[in-house]
Amino acid sequence: MATIKDIADKLGIAVSTVSKGLNGASDISHEMRQLVLDTAVEMGYASKRLKAKGTKKVCILIENMDYENIDQFGYEIIMGFKLSAARRHWDVSVIPSNLNMQTQEKFDTYMLKNEFSGAFLLGFTLHDDWIKQLHKTSVPTVLLDNYIAGNNHVGYVGTDSHEGISLAVNHLVGLGHKKIAFLNGSKNSMVSDERYQAFVSCMHENGLTADENLIEYGYYVPDCAKTHVPTFLHNGATAIICASDVMASGVISEVTKHGLKVPDDISVIGYDDLPIASQLNPPLTTIRQDRIDLGKSAFLLLDGLINDVTISKLLLRAKFIERQSTKAVKKA
Amino acid sequence: MATIKDIADKLGIAVSTVSKGLNGASDISHEMRQLVLDTAVEMGYASKRLKAKGTKKVCILIENMDYENIDQFGYEIIMGFKLSAARRHWDVSVIPSNLNMQTQEKFDTYMLKNEFSGAFLLGFTLHDDWIKQLHKTSVPTVLLDNYIAGNNHVGYVGTDSHEGISLAVNHLVGLGHKKIAFLNGSKNSMVSDERYQAFVSCMHENGLTADENLIEYGYYVPDCAKTHVPTFLHNGATAIICASDVMASGVISEVTKHGLKVPDDISVIGYDDLPIASQLNPPLTTIRQDRIDLGKSAFLLLDGLINDVTISKLLLRAKFIERQSTKAVKKA
Repeated sequence: MATIKDIADKLGIAVSTVSKGLNGASDISHEMRQLVLDTAVEMGYASKRLKAKGTKKVCILIENMDYENIDQFGYEIIMGFKLSAARRHWDVSVIPSNLNMQTQEKFDTYMLKNEFSGAFLLGFTLHDDWIKQLHKTSVPTVLLDNYIAGNNHVGYVGTDSHEGISLAVNHLVGLGHKKIAFLNGSKNSMVSDERYQAFVSCMHENGLTADENLIEYGYYVPDCAKTHVPTFLHNGATAIICASDVMASGVISEVTKHGLKVPDDISVIGYDDLPIASQLNPPLTTIRQDRIDLGKSAFLLLDGLINDVTISKLLLRAKFIERQSTKAVKKA
Repeated sequence: MATIKDIADKLGIAVSTVSKGLNGASDISHEMRQLVLDTAVEMGYASKRLKAKGTKKVCILIENMDYENIDQFGYEIIMGFKLSAARRHWDVSVIPSNLNMQTQEKFDTYMLKNEFSGAFLLGFTLHDDWIKQLHKTSVPTVLLDNYIAGNNHVGYVGTDSHEGISLAVNHLVGLGHKKIAFLNGSKNSMVSDERYQAFVSCMHENGLTADENLIEYGYYVPDCAKTHVPTFLHNGATAIICASDVMASGVISEVTKHGLKVPDDISVIGYDDLPIASQLNPPLTTIRQDRIDLGKSAFLLLDGLINDVTISKLLLRAKFIERQSTKAVKKA
């Protein structure tokens, strides 16, 4: 791996200038500092430096996800991560990310500048600049619900989609439902693809067809139910599986607006088991993602990657939580 | 969870007898001890007892797998596991298992009697009694290359089959091969199923057909090449992907016996990257499974399960190792 001297040689500057650049000294220009950091990253100097210094800092970069209070999806994930990190004496910084940050600076340079040995990225999409850069990063990085092929430094943590969707489908089939609709999450996401495939294959395993007229993609907000529920009802759905509890709350309202009752006329299943799930009317049957465990596992994976254990995927069990929003299908 | 008194009440015996049974005292009968242990397991007393005592013992149970020296598949897996366990101050016992052990005693009872908080099972097959019992075990257990649905206490560790097979197929396609054969491992195994599916889908992704006449199942010994290589050659294969380096060594001998040369006439790819791979003639291009990392990850997963983090799957990166057994396809 590169030394400070290699960086100096490559840039044709003094070793002392490189050292100033790496340490954030104020007596060199911002541009020179940036050049030194970018070159250090490019030459693979970053991880060596942090290991030598014994720095134990990692960060959670978060975007498009609420995490401020316990009712929100990100809250317990962050808590679980911090719990595990603290036990191994790592410092964790939680940093809200935005597009601006991503255009101003490369991911690897940002990490080196802030002396982070690794990162856990929450809520990013495949279109984000920093995600695109992950194909070549040398910084240990863990993604929630996203997978990067071919880079040993990046791992994926999530809940087993196949298990989650199976639990929902099998429960409904056990109650006699055949026309089962699936309101999936946003279209350009790995986890939505996986859940779609799981839905199609579980329906087949149960001897049923996954009707394309009963599968729609939405967003993780209640409002998305407005467009899709009428289509589902029109096409004869007797049950609706939703990709989140928040979507399910919108589905229950929309079904009610159509003069139908949950679960008497239509069964509804959520996903996640956020605190809201038990407070809905009726209380929501759902697929639980254990968010504390997701956070703990994300740290455990990141710790592995920092120690060169090339884990690529870590999946948690999904859990079936039965409440009152599902019921045996109405006899025709 | 059950107390010693609950066990005593259930069996209608004195608390002191239960205590003797659990502690292996010699002044009660063998049958009574067995009854106490079985009841303790059934009532979920086991993990509570070990946690309370602060015992930190786990075991590796191993069957049908060589592990005595570094040339064998199991050796480094065990080493990796022990390394990680030692760092967290856990004792590891390595125990060769056999059918006899499995018929004499239930898995959970065996674990409680020996005060193991968890187990890593290597080389077992789905037909083994203890594997069948894993659907209901409450003992944290990790399996290499096998998955048990629906039990939060059991996890699966392995190398990503899809990634491994993709690396092999893409390499051969890049060299112009179209008639690619696949000599898979034994038929009743989850990892063979996964590799089969990966092979079929990777061939499709490359615009090729996975010809069923070019797919066979064998065992992890060189001899299995004798039956399958003639079929592959007869059906026009120009390249053969093998499910292990040991199988590939047999394939190279068999190809040579047919008067053909590896890689000039037939390209061969192995799997695992055991030390033997680089010593073959020609040195073998292969898909590396990092066995130290498999062992480390198995402990990491077991440690998670012992602490109630319900990880179900942990997959490692496969790595492509290019040597001299593959070459551009011969022009017709």
